[in-house]
Amino acid sequence: MIDWTGQRAETTELSISYVRAGQGEPVIFLHGWPEWKRSWLHNLPVLAERFDCIAPDFRGFGATIAKSGRLSEGTPPQLLAKDLRDFTDRLGLEKVALVSHDVGSFVAQQFALAWPERVSRLFFVNCAYPGVGQRWGDWQLFPETWYQQFHQKDFAAALVGSSREACRIYFRHFLTHWTHQKHAFDDHLEEWVDNFMANDNIQGGFDWYVGVSRFRRRMMQDGALDIPKIKAPTYLLWGAHDPVLRFEFTDKLGDYFERHTLERAEDAGHFVHFEVPEVANARLAAFLSGEIG
Amino acid sequence: MIDWTGQRAETTELSISYVRAGQGEPVIFLHGWPEWKRSWLHNLPVLAERFDCIAPDFRGFGATIAKSGRLSEGTPPQLLAKDLRDFTDRLGLEKVALVSHDVGSFVAQQFALAWPERVSRLFFVNCAYPGVGQRWGDWQLFPETWYQQFHQKDFAAALVGSSREACRIYFRHFLTHWTHQKHAFDDHLEEWVDNFMANDNIQGGFDWYVGVSRFRRRMMQDGALDIPKIKAPTYLLWGAHDPVLRFEFTDKLGDYFERHTLERAEDAGHFVHFEVPEVANARLAAFLSGEIG
Repeated sequence: MIDWTGQRAETTELSISYVRAGQGEPVIFLHGWPEWKRSWLHNLPVLAERFDCIAPDFRGFGATIAKSGRLSEGTPPQLLAKDLRDFTDRLGLEKVALVSHDVGSFVAQQFALAWPERVSRLFFVNCAYPGVGQRWGDWQLFPETWYQQFHQKDFAAALVGSSREACRIYFRHFLTHWTHQKHAFDDHLEEWVDNFMANDNIQGGFDWYVGVSRFRRRMMQDGALDIPKIKAPTYLLWGAHDPVLRFEFTDKLGDYFERHTLERAEDAGHFVHFEVPEVANARLAAFLSGEIG
Repeated sequence: MIDWTGQRAETTELSISYVRAGQGEPVIFLHGWPEWKRSWLHNLPVLAERFDCIAPDFRGFGATIAKSGRLSEGTPPQLLAKDLRDFTDRLGLEKVALVSHDVGSFVAQQFALAWPERVSRLFFVNCAYPGVGQRWGDWQLFPETWYQQFHQKDFAAALVGSSREACRIYFRHFLTHWTHQKHAFDDHLEEWVDNFMANDNIQGGFDWYVGVSRFRRRMMQDGALDIPKIKAPTYLLWGAHDPVLRFEFTDKLGDYFERHTLERAEDAGHFVHFEVPEVANARLAAFLSGEIG
């Protein structure tokens, strides 16, 4: 049984809430938006049978607390990668495998480029990688990316958090629109609302969009970034029906990952790990144990 | 004194709520979003001294009622222009001057192209004209145009209308962000909330964005449209600080208006008629009486 209330690790800047379960090689699970550690609900129980599974909340999400409060520049990927570095140091982990999704995928890449010696393997559930490039600014994608702008507005968190009902309406949208398994989150919606109504997490999540916007604008302006390739073995399990991080955006993966395997998850959208956990868990177990990839 | 509760005109499809005051040449005032006839609050009392001023609510806005209910395709400009034609017929007006803003500016242009013999003069407070073209799809404008996408979402009206407070937060944003005179609407905010919380007007306004989206997507795709020029004398009073309908977009006016005068309103944003009514009223009186333009 996993204790989802989690435990705490104190770093200079954060009081990090995380869940840890199982024994074996250490694997860190990095969630996306609108998610927190609980998003690995269907995965940790299975993976903990073979690995030391660790799932933290990013600052601004879940129960992690930033001691300094909010930052005016938001929470860019570099900062979250530094938080992750502090976290692994605090736990005394010299080398880890990273499983990541959405926000987490930005952080995992940043971490792997900054401290390659600390990463054994990388598993991505869909992946916001620089090869998306100028397609972030394509007007035809705009019906799907408007929220990235809205989240940066100073009134957005007040509106979404104006009542529990408002919060429910907002998050229900993303948890259904972004899925292919439309009912995957039905039994968990109230839990999601609980989480985002607490701890200023609506604003905390939106601060991620403030933080990452400079990076995204640079891609819209200049196109795909010219940065070194990630060398660690990489596996990408990508939902065929993700309306934002579209499967067709996988065409540039070779420019950013030296050794990667791409698999299309036919029956899933954005939340592959939550929508089709059997598929995700089987692939995670095989890749993390070195059987594939 | 103007009676702002207004009166009603019945057409086949609508029960139109409108205000009428003054005597002289007939002038119809067409509001924008997020507005209704009340948006001409500072203008009608002055203009009614010289003209027969008529300010209706579009379907979906204010107190006008569509007998058939909502339309799945939203309310495109063509439909609102047809509504306006029915309205002028009902009032027995053979030729009118049109004063318009935002949504109203689309409708006035559509009306003037379809029935040029029914229009004497056109006055625009900023103007959403086809010369904006592909600039509607420019990613650098995304931080200002996100709401055009959000308004088309099936959950948007439920979120904004989830409580009076949610509604207030949302409309206060536009009534301050789009103004240069930041306090122009302070004393009227509750009235605005009253209006949008009533009569399903939040959804009604959003249906406009559903209706106009095909037109806007065509401009994003193909650029400025190749359509006939409007021949009626035209005056454009354009707020220098409108963050969406930017003053720089006026560069193509000559392609769409055969006889036009453009004036930059230095001290106003999107709502020139409400922000600097003295300027707007002076120019309206002079233009509508044929002294200028």
